[in-house]
Amino acid sequence: MALDTKLCTFTGRMVIVGFGSIGQGVLPLLLRHIDGLTADRITIVTAEERGREEAEHYGVAFHNNPLDNDNFFQILKPLIDKGDFLVNLSVDVSSVALIEFCQRVGAFYTDTCTEPWAGGYTDSSLSPSLRSNYALRETALALRSRFEGGPTALITHGANPGLVSHFVKQALLNIAADTGVETDIPADRDGWGRLAQKLGIKTIHVAERDTQVSNQPKQIGEFVNTWSIDGFVGEGCQPAELGWGTHEKALPPDGRRHEFGCDSAIYLMRPGAATRVRTWTPLEGPFHGFLITHSEAISISDYFTVREGGKVVYRPTCHYAYHPCDDAVMSLHELVGKNYNMQAEQRLMMHEITGGMDELGVLLMGHPKGAYWYGSRLDIDTARSLAPYNNATSMQVTSTVLGGIVWTLENPTRGVVEPDEVDFRRVLDIAAPYLGEVVGAYGDWTPLQDRNTLFPEDIDEDDPWQFKNFRVV
Amino acid sequence: MALDTKLCTFTGRMVIVGFGSIGQGVLPLLLRHIDGLTADRITIVTAEERGREEAEHYGVAFHNNPLDNDNFFQILKPLIDKGDFLVNLSVDVSSVALIEFCQRVGAFYTDTCTEPWAGGYTDSSLSPSLRSNYALRETALALRSRFEGGPTALITHGANPGLVSHFVKQALLNIAADTGVETDIPADRDGWGRLAQKLGIKTIHVAERDTQVSNQPKQIGEFVNTWSIDGFVGEGCQPAELGWGTHEKALPPDGRRHEFGCDSAIYLMRPGAATRVRTWTPLEGPFHGFLITHSEAISISDYFTVREGGKVVYRPTCHYAYHPCDDAVMSLHELVGKNYNMQAEQRLMMHEITGGMDELGVLLMGHPKGAYWYGSRLDIDTARSLAPYNNATSMQVTSTVLGGIVWTLENPTRGVVEPDEVDFRRVLDIAAPYLGEVVGAYGDWTPLQDRNTLFPEDIDEDDPWQFKNFRVV
Ligand SMILES: NC(=O)c1ccc[n+]([C@@H]2O[C@H](COP(=O)([O-])OP(=O)(O)OC[C@H]3O[C@@H](n4cnc5c(N)ncnc54)[C@H](O)[C@@H]3O)[C@@H](O)[C@H]2O)c1
Ligand SMILES: NC(=O)c1ccc[n+]([C@@H]2O[C@H](COP(=O)([O-])OP(=O)(O)OC[C@H]3O[C@@H](n4cnc5c(N)ncnc54)[C@H](O)[C@@H]3O)[C@@H](O)[C@H]2O)c1
Repeated sequence: MALDTKLCTFTGRMVIVGFGSIGQGVLPLLLRHIDGLTADRITIVTAEERGREEAEHYGVAFHNNPLDNDNFFQILKPLIDKGDFLVNLSVDVSSVALIEFCQRVGAFYTDTCTEPWAGGYTDSSLSPSLRSNYALRETALALRSRFEGGPTALITHGANPGLVSHFVKQALLNIAADTGVETDIPADRDGWGRLAQKLGIKTIHVAERDTQVSNQPKQIGEFVNTWSIDGFVGEGCQPAELGWGTHEKALPPDGRRHEFGCDSAIYLMRPGAATRVRTWTPLEGPFHGFLITHSEAISISDYFTVREGGKVVYRPTCHYAYHPCDDAVMSLHELVGKNYNMQAEQRLMMHEITGGMDELGVLLMGHPKGAYWYGSRLDIDTARSLAPYNNATSMQVTSTVLGGIVWTLENPTRGVVEPDEVDFRRVLDIAAPYLGEVVGAYGDWTPLQDRNTLFPEDIDEDDPWQFKNFRVV
Repeated sequence: MALDTKLCTFTGRMVIVGFGSIGQGVLPLLLRHIDGLTADRITIVTAEERGREEAEHYGVAFHNNPLDNDNFFQILKPLIDKGDFLVNLSVDVSSVALIEFCQRVGAFYTDTCTEPWAGGYTDSSLSPSLRSNYALRETALALRSRFEGGPTALITHGANPGLVSHFVKQALLNIAADTGVETDIPADRDGWGRLAQKLGIKTIHVAERDTQVSNQPKQIGEFVNTWSIDGFVGEGCQPAELGWGTHEKALPPDGRRHEFGCDSAIYLMRPGAATRVRTWTPLEGPFHGFLITHSEAISISDYFTVREGGKVVYRPTCHYAYHPCDDAVMSLHELVGKNYNMQAEQRLMMHEITGGMDELGVLLMGHPKGAYWYGSRLDIDTARSLAPYNNATSMQVTSTVLGGIVWTLENPTRGVVEPDEVDFRRVLDIAAPYLGEVVGAYGDWTPLQDRNTLFPEDIDEDDPWQFKNFRVV
């Protein structure tokens, strides 16, 4: 695909809610690739002045008008009607409320994260189970039966969650080819689950190493990141969550099952910002990532579940293992050291980035070749050469948002849809030109490598892929 | 004291073993403050070319000649005789071997750390107990009885270990004055122990926050620190160790007692580089520091032990709670993430530092006013204005080394001596002009502040000063 290809035509109106790093990054892609989507058809509704200049540069209407549960209907109603598109790229705005609104008015919808209203991630009047992404996802999925066949609402379709679900499918096909397992491209969910089972996949990490740096050192009392700081801190304060595979021998001592919903995942009685796991990417090698909760951990484990006679016979463990940029690791360290009292200053790194890349992919483990990583290596210079208003991190997200919007318009009556249910090849094709190198690589890494040397460690030598071996204690 | 005061006269020869950040930083101070110590009387014996330029600048002989167990006698013998002074500021050279050598030839000795020969910190053929600073200290102290009345050998006398032992004494006197407890300056060890007991001190942290930064971002595969990288990694790989107070209700699950020696300390079955504790300094506020083993944790707990009828009736818990500069926190994170396989590159930050300070002091907790921090706030600009070849961190060390050398020459026949046995006022007076602001401050902080909010935590509400409350799990 060339960088000026028109991918589809859309002549409705579009509202972008939230215009931070992702909103700003996606706007040039939408204008570039969607025929008929002219600037005068787009309205931005956001909660601060950030981004006004860019909006004006493109001639797009910009409303600084924070949404809440009481005002969102009045604010959005005049802007969105049947056949229009609401692109939710905000924090602190309930995804479920906006999805329901769109279903009622007949508008398309997409977002990159199932967000609660402000404060929802840390509302300690809710149990950890109810503050989880598992609970948010169940609430969003509960809309399905109410709005079957409604206008497509593609939820959590960014890089991760989003793109990584597509990477998993491509990775499974690649592993099958490389290990001599013959398979068609599975036609349905059960087929995909059985392929993963057949290949022996036990654990899937979303293994990400962001190496972007700047020469502006992080200040004390400043949270620095390459994407939403509110978003990251919010999910970092939620319980660590992971899809819980059938090969796991024992629940972690601080692990809990939810008492409702699909039961594909567990949560730990601690925040992800304070929970580290061992993982691996081809360029970085072994490292410690944070087990930050993400909906893909839950949806992927759910999607690849194989049932026989109603009984779960196979499910992979799946979770995020995230090494954000170094300044964000330091920011987390400071945040946790101050008992989750947010820093006074925030800085979303963009122009000041001097180097580095986002190495983002999925790591599939347990098959005969050990560990296979498949993903995107996008460095900051490449990202900047591809589109304005992006860094390496945002571009992996915005290109997938573009792909999701195109797929939505091509599949307009699917109701509420998760990334795992989308045509992965269509989205990968659209996103690919923006992802830098898309590569697969095998590694002989296991979480038992170099363990038990300085001190005895409590590990399971018999099965390297037990969660207990990944976890850093 | 003025910056050109001559503090004492010394006309013997001096050998400086190791000429890294501390050796290079101390040389100008020694030439400035010790009468008779001319450049031609000093010889540097080190293991690399680093520092040659500075040595040549001052006209000091520079030998790049790494010492080991087989060659050290031959190399040092021609350079050191009765009445000379060996200043050991190296890594990877056995302190005990050099102390014994000095006792035999009749030379003075000082160092800032009890070092083993290369590889000693991570020799996994030794048990964690035998790889500890506790064991190293016992071996050094065992020389005492063999060389009673020998030339003074002042061990572990840098900033910490070293200066902080003197800070503790001054802090105790300040707390006594502020809480209306009448006391003379105690005359002996028992008197100091009883003062600490009377004041109700339960736990002492060496609470340090190094905020020095540069605009040269840490590279991947690079360990960055403001002082010895080998030294820091070495101690970070040793077991976490702490002086173990009589108020502690239960040994930590991974805590062990040693089966020999003074029994003032315990160790954890894990490296300090992976062990975090909650602490507090007046400027930084609450933060997570690393529980890196240091001999002061053991010696202070030992020194302030009160015995009655041979039975221990009082002892404070004491340990390091270290927040190195941000780049060093990132370097540790990378090191631990790669299972303690050392980075290929190292950078000891010096000229490139653009700002920040070393806030280094002792935090005495449990007395009626809660928590009292007493220490040095030295920023990089002040450090640079005071002496060349120093950053804020090294200057707190080198000024104390200077004070210790002067005290040694004034007290020449004490044999092997620890910082706690030195005249704290003499050293504080000498170091003070180089320490920036030396301040005391009370805080209402306890490790229970802001706990138990997002998730239930296993804490002891009845006694905030239990180690279990400080520890980050
Ligand atoms: N799936 C992925 O890969 C992925 C990646 C990055 C970000 N995200 C998600 O995308 C969303 C946006 O991320 P970002 O990096 O652009 O965040 P950002 O923090 O840069 O921007 C958030 C935007 O939301 C706006 N906003 C806040 N409160 C609002 C309100 N009450 N009403 C309307 N707008 C409001 C802000 O003004 C801002 O424009 C977040 O939910 C984030 O978690 C997903
Ligand atoms: N007590 C304190 O406050 C404190 C503070 C900082 C450093 N230290 C200690 O001081 C010592 C030096 O610290 P630094 O920051 O200067 O370290 P550094 O790493 O900058 O320098 C170490 C020096 O030792 C030399 N060396 C290495 N192997 C040697 C050998 N075999 N023979 C002779 N020399 C050898 C190196 O060449 C180098 O000159 C370390 O033991 C460190 O732990 C103590």
